[in-house]
Parts: sequence; C-alpha cells; structure tokens
Amino acid sequence: MMRQVSDYARVFFMALSIAALGQTDVMAQQDARTQVVQKTKVVFQISDGDNRKWDLALNNVKNVIKDMGKDNIEVEIVAYGPGVDMFKFESPAASRIDEVIKMGAHVVICENTMRAQKISKADMLENLGYVEAGVSQLIKRQQQGYAYIRP
Amino acid sequence: MMRQVSDYARVFFMALSIAALGQTDVMAQQDARTQVVQKTKVVFQISDGDNRKWDLALNNVKNVIKDMGKDNIEVEIVAYGPGVDMFKFESPAASRIDEVIKMGAHVVICENTMRAQKISKADMLENLGYVEAGVSQLIKRQQQGYAYIRP
Amino acid sequence: MMRQVSDYARVFFMALSIAALGQTDVMAQQDARTQVVQKTKVVFQISDGDNRKWDLALNNVKNVIKDMGKDNIEVEIVAYGPGVDMFKFESPAASRIDEVIKMGAHVVICENTMRAQKISKADMLENLGYVEAGVSQLIKRQQQGYAYIRP
Repeated sequence: MMRQVSDYARVFFMALSIAALGQTDVMAQQDARTQVVQKTKVVFQISDGDNRKWDLALNNVKNVIKDMGKDNIEVEIVAYGPGVDMFKFESPAASRIDEVIKMGAHVVICENTMRAQKISKADMLENLGYVEAGVSQLIKRQQQGYAYIRP
Repeated sequence: MMRQVSDYARVFFMALSIAALGQTDVMAQQDARTQVVQKTKVVFQISDGDNRKWDLALNNVKNVIKDMGKDNIEVEIVAYGPGVDMFKFESPAASRIDEVIKMGAHVVICENTMRAQKISKADMLENLGYVEAGVSQLIKRQQQGYAYIRP
Repeated sequence: MMRQVSDYARVFFMALSIAALGQTDVMAQQDARTQVVQKTKVVFQISDGDNRKWDLALNNVKNVIKDMGKDNIEVEIVAYGPGVDMFKFESPAASRIDEVIKMGAHVVICENTMRAQKISKADMLENLGYVEAGVSQLIKRQQQGYAYIRP
C-alpha cells in the first residue's frame, strides 16, 4: 500500500513538474515582451522647415544619448515634408548631423516627399536611410514600442 | 502490473493535457493582445491654425492610407484649439478633407473648443464626429494602441 | 477497485488544481499589466517659446482634468528648450500655472536647458520638479504607459 501511494505521488509530481515547465515558458515569453517594452527606443519626427527646430532636435538627440548611454538607447530620426531640407547636401546642420550619426543615431528620409520636391539621393547627405512614407515609418516604430518625440 | 502502469500513465497524461489546455488559453489571450497591438491604428492631431500644416496633415493621411492599404489602417483626425478652423464650412481645405473622409479617415472635433469660439455644428463641414474634449480623445486613442502623429 | 479509482481521481484532481493555480498567477499578472495600460496617464511636452502655445497647453491640461476627473488622471508637464521660459518667475502664465498645479498637475523642468540658458532654480516659479534631461523624461513616461501630447 505504501508503495502504491508513493507511485501515485511520483505520477502526480511528474505531471506537476511538466505543468510548471509550461508556466515557465509563458513567464519567459512575458519577460521577453516586457524587456522589449522597457528597452529604450525613440523615434524623433522632423517635419518643420525651421533651422531653430533642427538645432533643438539635434540637441535633444545628443542629450538623450548622453543621458541614457549610447548602448542603452536606439534613436531613429524620421524626416518628411519640409523637414527633409534638414538633410540636404547643403544643409547648415550637416556637421552636427554627422556628429549624431557617429553617436549611433539613424536617419530615415521619406521618399514620397523627395518625389514631390523632385530631389534625388544625390542631393542628400551621406549615411542616410530611406523609406517609402515617413509617416508610415513613425507609425510602425510606435507600434514596435518606440517612444515618439516631436520637437 | 501492466494494467496498473497504464492507469498511472492515463492519470499522468490527463493531468498533462489539462495543463496544456490551460496554456493554450493563455497563449490565445496573448495572441489576441499582440494582434491588437500590431493592427495599424493612428490618430492625427490638428491643433494649429496654419493652412500649410493642414495641407501637410492631409498629405500625411493620404500617403499613409495609400502606403498601408485602406483595409489595413484605421485613421482618426482629432481637431482642437486653432485646428478646428480647418473643418469650418468655409475651409480652404474642404474638398481635400472630403477626399480623405471618402478614403476612410474619420474626423473628430473638440466641442470645448467650439463653445469657446462660439461656433455650432451648423458652421462646420459635413461628415464630422464630435467629442467633449479633443485632448481626452487623443489620450484615449493612445491608450487603445493608436500611434500618435502631430504634423 | 473502487478505492483505487478514487485514488487515481484524487491524484488527477490535485494535479489539475495545481495547474489551475499556476494559470491564476499568470492571469493575475496579465490583469495587473492591463490595468497599468488602462490607467489614464498623460505627459504634455512644452518646448516652444510661444505665449499662445502656453495658453493652449494650459487649457488642454484643465480640460483633460475636468473631463476625466481629478482622481482618474495623472498629468505631467515636461518643459525643455524654449519651453522652459513658460515657468520662469516672471512668466505671464504664472497664475494659470499655479491653478493647474493646484488641480493636481506636476511640472518637470529640464536641467540641461537651464545650464545652457545659465538660469538657476531661483529664477523659476515654485512647486516645480526638475530632471536632468527633459526629453529622456518624455521617453521614460511613454515607456511607462503615459500618453504623449505635444500641443
């Protein structure tokens, strides 16, 4: 009789362990998701054709990278509409843009705007990325957990 | 003896199955939530009394609907403060507003602003929605998983 | 034989109960997370040096607190760049700022901006909070589930 009880107990705890393992998987998934939410990612919108806004935005990007630490933050700058001018070859902000790119920031330009303004990649600074629609990119990034800053 | 082992096995696998069913429920809930997060919804804020901003915002809305596909995106435009002027009956943007509404965008106007400006629904374009406070609507939409764009 | 079946059944239902307990924990965690997301929290960005924007922002804050109810909303105003001027001692908006603080809103000022402008806390209104980098604060609040409004 003792032996039989012990057998039931073994079956019971084996089932329990398997159930617990399942829980652990779910927990791990939740942790992974929480981690994605907590990892600091931010997208900056540049949509004004205004030199002072550009300077403010570049200061923002530099301060955030310094404040959080280069390895702890993912920064993307999305330019569309009049904001695309900031990243043209002759931009007064060129050297400061180069500086934030070297600090790890990514820049993405709206090709819809470029077509409307009849400009090509040859008219733009180097080390930039391109997307079909800047606004769609801003939306996608927010859906991916990026914070949104509109300087 | 064989029979008894088989009984243990049955108990074990029944317990395991039930545990697995429970897991499946949790997974299904997680999938449902993930789907809500991934479905593309966006709310645009119109709060400036500036014709060029209005044009930019309407271009944004059209580009996003074209880029993502009418059936894959939910677009709401919330106007408050000086932005309400964009949707008045005599608005220079009237025909273009009609166009984005036909493309599926919804427009919502702040009644707090209308009271402050002493204007009524008779002064406004057709096919608009109304809310008590435009800013509260922008907050609620973000809580519901909408991306936020402030042109 | 009956006795033995009843033993199997007991093992089975114990395993089931434990599995169910595990589920309940996971559910509780999910409910807690959902609740955090649904609680209304909002952060307002003040980054323009523009009196009319300041008035609009203060109206926004008052309307939101009235509309949602003081006890149902957490409002934080983050000022940086030219927006810091709004909260200087001699600000034309001083009495209205005092009013929204009394309604429960919190104000947080960017110390990076203050250093750049060579101003100290003695130059500022009372009852304000301070952070190293205003933009980092806006990012953190969004990661914590705050909606973001940029008037």
